Amino acid sequence: MIDMRSDTVTRPSDAMRERAHDAAVGDDVYGEDPTVNELQARAADVLGAEAALFVPTGTMGNQVAARTHTDRGQEVLCERESHIYKWELGGLVQHADLQPRTLDGGERGVITPEQVRDGYVEADGHRPGTGLLTLENTHNSKGGTALAPHRIAAAAEAAHDRDVPVHLDGARLFNAAVTHDCDPSSFVDPVDSVLCCLSKGLGAPVGSIIAGSESFIERARRVRKLLGGGMRQAGIVAGPGLTALDNRDRLAEDHRRATRLAAGLDAVDGLSAAEPETNIVLVETDRPAEAVLEAYESAGLLGSPFGEYTIRFCTHLDIDDEDVDAAVGIAESATA
Amino acid sequence: MIDMRSDTVTRPSDAMRERAHDAAVGDDVYGEDPTVNELQARAADVLGAEAALFVPTGTMGNQVAARTHTDRGQEVLCERESHIYKWELGGLVQHADLQPRTLDGGERGVITPEQVRDGYVEADGHRPGTGLLTLENTHNSKGGTALAPHRIAAAAEAAHDRDVPVHLDGARLFNAAVTHDCDPSSFVDPVDSVLCCLSKGLGAPVGSIIAGSESFIERARRVRKLLGGGMRQAGIVAGPGLTALDNRDRLAEDHRRATRLAAGLDAVDGLSAAEPETNIVLVETDRPAEAVLEAYESAGLLGSPFGEYTIRFCTHLDIDDEDVDAAVGIAESATA
Amino acid sequence: MIDMRSDTVTRPSDAMRERAHDAAVGDDVYGEDPTVNELQARAADVLGAEAALFVPTGTMGNQVAARTHTDRGQEVLCERESHIYKWELGGLVQHADLQPRTLDGGERGVITPEQVRDGYVEADGHRPGTGLLTLENTHNSKGGTALAPHRIAAAAEAAHDRDVPVHLDGARLFNAAVTHDCDPSSFVDPVDSVLCCLSKGLGAPVGSIIAGSESFIERARRVRKLLGGGMRQAGIVAGPGLTALDNRDRLAEDHRRATRLAAGLDAVDGLSAAEPETNIVLVETDRPAEAVLEAYESAGLLGSPFGEYTIRFCTHLDIDDEDVDAAVGIAESATA
Amino acid sequence: MIDMRSDTVTRPSDAMRERAHDAAVGDDVYGEDPTVNELQARAADVLGAEAALFVPTGTMGNQVAARTHTDRGQEVLCERESHIYKWELGGLVQHADLQPRTLDGGERGVITPEQVRDGYVEADGHRPGTGLLTLENTHNSKGGTALAPHRIAAAAEAAHDRDVPVHLDGARLFNAAVTHDCDPSSFVDPVDSVLCCLSKGLGAPVGSIIAGSESFIERARRVRKLLGGGMRQAGIVAGPGLTALDNRDRLAEDHRRATRLAAGLDAVDGLSAAEPETNIVLVETDRPAEAVLEAYESAGLLGSPFGEYTIRFCTHLDIDDEDVDAAVGIAESATA
Repeated sequence: MIDMRSDTVTRPSDAMRERAHDAAVGDDVYGEDPTVNELQARAADVLGAEAALFVPTGTMGNQVAARTHTDRGQEVLCERESHIYKWELGGLVQHADLQPRTLDGGERGVITPEQVRDGYVEADGHRPGTGLLTLENTHNSKGGTALAPHRIAAAAEAAHDRDVPVHLDGARLFNAAVTHDCDPSSFVDPVDSVLCCLSKGLGAPVGSIIAGSESFIERARRVRKLLGGGMRQAGIVAGPGLTALDNRDRLAEDHRRATRLAAGLDAVDGLSAAEPETNIVLVETDRPAEAVLEAYESAGLLGSPFGEYTIRFCTHLDIDDEDVDAAVGIAESATA
Repeated sequence: MIDMRSDTVTRPSDAMRERAHDAAVGDDVYGEDPTVNELQARAADVLGAEAALFVPTGTMGNQVAARTHTDRGQEVLCERESHIYKWELGGLVQHADLQPRTLDGGERGVITPEQVRDGYVEADGHRPGTGLLTLENTHNSKGGTALAPHRIAAAAEAAHDRDVPVHLDGARLFNAAVTHDCDPSSFVDPVDSVLCCLSKGLGAPVGSIIAGSESFIERARRVRKLLGGGMRQAGIVAGPGLTALDNRDRLAEDHRRATRLAAGLDAVDGLSAAEPETNIVLVETDRPAEAVLEAYESAGLLGSPFGEYTIRFCTHLDIDDEDVDAAVGIAESATA
Repeated sequence: MIDMRSDTVTRPSDAMRERAHDAAVGDDVYGEDPTVNELQARAADVLGAEAALFVPTGTMGNQVAARTHTDRGQEVLCERESHIYKWELGGLVQHADLQPRTLDGGERGVITPEQVRDGYVEADGHRPGTGLLTLENTHNSKGGTALAPHRIAAAAEAAHDRDVPVHLDGARLFNAAVTHDCDPSSFVDPVDSVLCCLSKGLGAPVGSIIAGSESFIERARRVRKLLGGGMRQAGIVAGPGLTALDNRDRLAEDHRRATRLAAGLDAVDGLSAAEPETNIVLVETDRPAEAVLEAYESAGLLGSPFGEYTIRFCTHLDIDDEDVDAAVGIAESATA
Repeated sequence: MIDMRSDTVTRPSDAMRERAHDAAVGDDVYGEDPTVNELQARAADVLGAEAALFVPTGTMGNQVAARTHTDRGQEVLCERESHIYKWELGGLVQHADLQPRTLDGGERGVITPEQVRDGYVEADGHRPGTGLLTLENTHNSKGGTALAPHRIAAAAEAAHDRDVPVHLDGARLFNAAVTHDCDPSSFVDPVDSVLCCLSKGLGAPVGSIIAGSESFIERARRVRKLLGGGMRQAGIVAGPGLTALDNRDRLAEDHRRATRLAAGLDAVDGLSAAEPETNIVLVETDRPAEAVLEAYESAGLLGSPFGEYTIRFCTHLDIDDEDVDAAVGIAESATA
């Protein structure tokens, strides 16, 4: 079975398993796990941030950041298809008591400075004030679009002009860095906190990172505990996370394969696929996506429904060139 | 350094590390991690429950259970020193919107049926109704007291008579089972959900289990996602958790050593320690606990402050007989 | 001073004051205030609902309804400029734990069945389900637009098809009824609850009504108490509310005057005003609205800033034909 | 029917009705209602506070104060039978996200400085910090006990020593002032905010006051709006509230009558009543309270059930000496 439902399905490499096996560990609630500490220091360094915190999942990382930055009863500006708003069970409301005000990022999920300025609300006797802007890069629901650093910087500046902090959901931040051939810190410098996942394209079995100022991370640590994210000998999973951080360059392979896959699928009758910017391929189908996916599954190919007539495929660590070709082959025979 | 601050500091055994290394994994958000599934099935079996769910921490397990059982705006009955109320950053309020009504469990943390009946509140136009009873066994803050199954059953019955569900915080449930020489299911049968930790005395690096009916676990799964506990290839940590479940019998060793430690410390001038029921030893000090702990630390012994004149020591997987004797020796020379 | 900032500034008539003076009263928390009970019965009758509840403000009425209809953690569909979302300090989040999903009602604030269908979210493991649709008629922020009953019915039907209840913010519902020359019940029949204000155009000093099924009102009564809306001898204000209900027909006068005002202002250089649908006139200004309003105030005319280049004027009980002409006169001389 | 269920059942006097009739009014959301402003200034003066705010109910006043003083996720110290904790539908949790930590005020509801010190929690990685202390005077559930000013001051000082603000629920504060023959400000000086009701013994139909510093009231005003307490021409009820403030001295009459009632009831076979401190008489019954109350009601006397074997009677504005004697007569004949 060729599993391209998501890049979350990657299985840890042998190197990661070795790392899990050999990890020096301690109780991370006391801050004494050396592997977690090493990972946090390394991640902060890679991201160009003062400090970092290991969290069990990307969702927790986003939600911890949102609560840490804000007071109850404020508004949060976020893209209307953003993961933090759409796919996290309403956590912005449930955890951080924030009223979302959504912005329309269009086809690529770009939030402009104008949108930030227009969406900004000054607190008064009738209106909650804006307390946070969230951005997402790459933008999952838009098909893994990779915004350039200047886009992030421009939106963040508009927020900062109004003293509004900015959180960047960079679950797939390293994909964006590969596309724009830049240092990840280019995306992180303009914002106040960032989340990035060690699972997904980097292949770690468990875990994500949030990074920001030392004071932010210190407060975030407490919110992580509140959400039940204070694990004990977490070095067992932080170890593979360290290996994952070394996997950043190979994301270029995933992108190359995604491009090849998109081209192949676009040539299939009944399918249409634009050129992807990263490792996510959105395919428009003539027949209902569910029916197409069923046919593909019978033939050995898995994708995700992403709308009534849209399928999402992800390339990742466990997908090689042959898988891509095989997938196109299945699409050729099973689409109609 | 002899580290008896908590049984959370245990380091995974070689067997556990092997298990982490070799674990078959999949994406647990899709329910496809075979090791997680095996652990959940095994844990449900051990606990005598229909179904179980793996969660990253005990705190998350407790909070997921509380939210799953209740509607917003209800009351929760809990012991006033219980972990879920006292040590989880107010999660009952933050996650489940429940108003705690605390019961005084006295020296051993026993909640009686009378207390449940008295504490029960019928919902009306002025009062939130009682939506949940939580119990804790063993009871951490009371010094690891191990309530007998009939105590749990009696309190639970009083709650059930009023249609109030019962959650058992059994972070150290297997310690209670050892003390009472009974099957863990004896504690679980009378309640609607249970949490037990695979870390702590069982020695797993990461993870806890909640168990209950199939319908409860299905709903809890969604709440776990909301709290950011939906990990991906979690088999890496579920594997060691399976080994941990085999460590239940050896908890008797911890209890034996705790008893030996308490006797040794009680004989020291300036200290007083009652016989422990499980692996937790509470020691009353003549001098301020902080000062005593400082002196011990200099001499190579770690405990936890547990009040102005109280120290907590925990025995666990990484503490052997020699450590116990050495600890008593340090206390003899460094207490005054 | 001609005060057209809002129709909330109306002062109670002599008849209302008499009614306050003479009201038979009792303790409404016990349900024993005969005047409140009379008002609730009368309002239910006027609105064509099973039951009604008196609340101190429109904001409370909207928020009580939202919480009563929903469970925590759901989504609410609402127009992006709707009062319940924009002007109530984020109450949907703070009181009802709902994640707003906003729909764009365009120039007149019309929510179409297609928008409801597109915005509807089925609850699953990642997404909160839709728990409520709110509509607003007349729509304040769009300039008092009065949607026809069939518009309300169409959107509500789309929601009901998905088992989503519908709340209608009819703070100025009777204005809409006048515009469409229909019975207020035409708007209420298709929805599950409605709010309407006795203050604003009807002129009562204090109070609003929510109406719906008997079961809804019974549950809403408890939520009203939670929000601190359970007043005692509320007949003192319910009495004037009964008089206010008789003021419905005279809203036609306000509409006539608003039309006259809009025409007059539109003829002024530097101003542009479309024909109003009810008693609210939105005026676009060439100069910044704040500056224009300052000049008007010096000349004896009050309006509300409603955007950087928009002013809102409301006609109401205390504005007569002469006031309208005087207002136009002031605008003629003070705009440039 | 002699109605002594509560002092909330009082009907407004002719003077109050005149005041309602004649009140100068404006839109209080704009801060322009002269009667509301007069009442707020007068109440601040009477209470010895910088500023005051009119709210529709005592429950709203308490909840607005609690939310205004705190951040989400803190703890609140409150007496375990206090109104704000027990009778307000869990508002401390629902509105202010506070975890209550209850203190046992014993028979009279006295919170000692020691209890405040013991109950205080320093915020750390596991525990929410204490954010508020609430006191209640007179204490309703304890039978209207009137704590002396030095009691309030002592508890408040213990809180202030730890930078914890103090809110005083003085729904019946003027009763306490009468009992201790002191200025109401004696209770207010040591605390950060106070609620007092204009209804209850003072007889106003609707409304309560919260008072505190100017900055507190400014922030509270916004929270009042959030809870739906921003009324419009509220002078109609603020007017009677001004008259109510003049009724403070006559509370001595209620106390005298309560003493007389208690003595009379205590002499009845099957009843036992301690001497009241204010206007609330708690009566212990031999037979179930519900049955006794039913018999009384048939004979023309109303009280409130206050426990399985406890009845509460309140004297108030509408109860005179003859009513008291008649009530005793009914008890004599209908108790057994």
